[in-house]
Amino acid sequence: MKDVFELHQGGGALEIQAKLPVTNKTELGLAYTPGIAKLCSAIEKDPKAAEEYTLKGKLVAIITDGSAVLGLGNIGPMAGLPVVEGKALLDKQLAGIDAIPLCIRQAPVEQQVETIANLADSFSAIHLEDFKAPECFELERQLQERLSIPVHHDDQDGTSIAVLAALINSCKVTGRTLKDCRVVICGAGASGIATAKLLLEAGITQIILTDLNGILHPELKGMNAEQAAMAKQTNPERKTGSLKEALVGADVFIGLSTADVINEEEVRSMSPNPIVFGLANPNPEIDPALAKKGGAAIIATGGSKYPNQINNVLVFPGLFKGLLKTRQRFISKEMKIRIAQALAALVENPTADDVIADVFDPRVVDAVAQAVVQCQKDPA
Amino acid sequence: MKDVFELHQGGGALEIQAKLPVTNKTELGLAYTPGIAKLCSAIEKDPKAAEEYTLKGKLVAIITDGSAVLGLGNIGPMAGLPVVEGKALLDKQLAGIDAIPLCIRQAPVEQQVETIANLADSFSAIHLEDFKAPECFELERQLQERLSIPVHHDDQDGTSIAVLAALINSCKVTGRTLKDCRVVICGAGASGIATAKLLLEAGITQIILTDLNGILHPELKGMNAEQAAMAKQTNPERKTGSLKEALVGADVFIGLSTADVINEEEVRSMSPNPIVFGLANPNPEIDPALAKKGGAAIIATGGSKYPNQINNVLVFPGLFKGLLKTRQRFISKEMKIRIAQALAALVENPTADDVIADVFDPRVVDAVAQAVVQCQKDPA
Repeated sequence: MKDVFELHQGGGALEIQAKLPVTNKTELGLAYTPGIAKLCSAIEKDPKAAEEYTLKGKLVAIITDGSAVLGLGNIGPMAGLPVVEGKALLDKQLAGIDAIPLCIRQAPVEQQVETIANLADSFSAIHLEDFKAPECFELERQLQERLSIPVHHDDQDGTSIAVLAALINSCKVTGRTLKDCRVVICGAGASGIATAKLLLEAGITQIILTDLNGILHPELKGMNAEQAAMAKQTNPERKTGSLKEALVGADVFIGLSTADVINEEEVRSMSPNPIVFGLANPNPEIDPALAKKGGAAIIATGGSKYPNQINNVLVFPGLFKGLLKTRQRFISKEMKIRIAQALAALVENPTADDVIADVFDPRVVDAVAQAVVQCQKDPA
Repeated sequence: MKDVFELHQGGGALEIQAKLPVTNKTELGLAYTPGIAKLCSAIEKDPKAAEEYTLKGKLVAIITDGSAVLGLGNIGPMAGLPVVEGKALLDKQLAGIDAIPLCIRQAPVEQQVETIANLADSFSAIHLEDFKAPECFELERQLQERLSIPVHHDDQDGTSIAVLAALINSCKVTGRTLKDCRVVICGAGASGIATAKLLLEAGITQIILTDLNGILHPELKGMNAEQAAMAKQTNPERKTGSLKEALVGADVFIGLSTADVINEEEVRSMSPNPIVFGLANPNPEIDPALAKKGGAAIIATGGSKYPNQINNVLVFPGLFKGLLKTRQRFISKEMKIRIAQALAALVENPTADDVIADVFDPRVVDAVAQAVVQCQKDPA
């Protein structure tokens, strides 16, 4: 079998394909000048025509600056390219979406916003990938304000939606009510904060976020603005202390940090039959075997070695399929919750080893896309 | 037969094609995480690895701001998309080049440079298209200074190279020596100025540039900086007056302006058996039938209705094929002249109706690419 280098050699995993023949002057005149002058004029009159008659109409830009690549950290824009190229490949193979991988220089947020905005007319949607927190929040916010196309930061939206979907089913299996769960999220970066926000939106009130300095609470030092805002919105009992202390009596652990940050004892300190999602890649926050020994009723990871793989690929291809179909501009909170519910519903009889649909389940893309479409038909 | 709208409906002339299958976890692990982490690390260590293992290694960005679209003028970035998409289609169909069409907002040159530079690591070459003069000169210059990949402004390089190729053979047919030709170029925009520059490089000394204000000479009012520079380098006899006056006794007319700017009488005022290139699209500077009545020995246009089509498509696919193959960073003057000579040499026995190779001549792309490769092997 070919290894990963051999497989990607000679220009990666994608190519540009031409859809029109150009073998004689008649064909040239229709594929290029003078024929396309008619398309130019039609777009000049009505910019919507660009969606119909050019690649723009179906093109998603997947952009990274390589500042926070899963498991690798800040490796720079060009080294981040294989990730965005891989996501473009998945968009095509799973949902028929045309996406182009791009990398952007690391620079102040305003400059990245300006750069992306200056080229945004070339695309129908923007998928941001692997931008580090807290800058990624401002980047996404400013782009959403300025652009007339949807902007999705996958490390936030994709992760939080997939987590919520798995959590809905995990509650069913363990006899819990979603809203009453006591949740500890380890990692207050892009995905940790986005997950906390979405779980709040879903009605969960008992959420504690932790990072290297321990439990986020309003008096904690060294937080960025996003973390400070979350410290106010979460942790209603204003607990302080370490992750270890946060876990005592908790129902759910959601790890969005790095490998091996909790142990068997800490799992045992949680409420009976706890739910443990160790989503760090390539190695989870706790080895699933240890989590099991600690009494975890449900264990999920980000990888494919164990049951219950919580992976963004469950979300983004269907999300863009739905967005391109309906031309909705915003990815609303309601949309995210509906997608999570649709994903959860694909598992008809959830069990401990089956709380989330398989990434190759052929129903996933359309279930997600349909949830997006439904948001237009029936806005909440 | 389908019309141009039907042909381009549903997302234009291109699509993104996936080259790797993703139907099971093994394939997923090689096409995406965790496998691609190895590619990321390899690129982090050596950026050259991105050329080998990602789409970047073969990707040309064709970028327009739609400020000077052939025959249509300033129609805006999005309305310029069909042209860059058409060129990307030709790149693929004629030379197997993967090119992505992009449009950029109209903005001061420094801002456009910044935007393109910020994303340039995503590509192996930049093809600029339909940027208006004089800003296009500064845009190309600054990008060439800043980037480590080749930057080609097709309205300058492509046009000037194709014109020189046709002129070499036209001189053969009419018994002229290239260097002794008295040339009048009508139109002092991007292509007019670039053509004047290349003809100077090729050794032609008697060149007059004209624009709406008449013959460019150092005292002419209202010129931009590029035109002022050209006014000094051309027109050695320091002629003044109109296009009509410039044409008296000239050997060659090169029209890079708009339709119907010269008439039969003016052709008749040129030297015997003059060479008349009316390259404005869609309609030439003089109707070929009138030019013939005026005594033109050789007539070329930009379109395909008449013999002798001088079109940029003769140049850019082969140019990029050669550049991608050799990873040369600059498109030098010597390279341009060698490409023109190689193109001219494809017509073994030039005649009045055959001074330039057909755009569908299958030898064109490789002849151009080979000239580019030769520049690396044997720098002038």
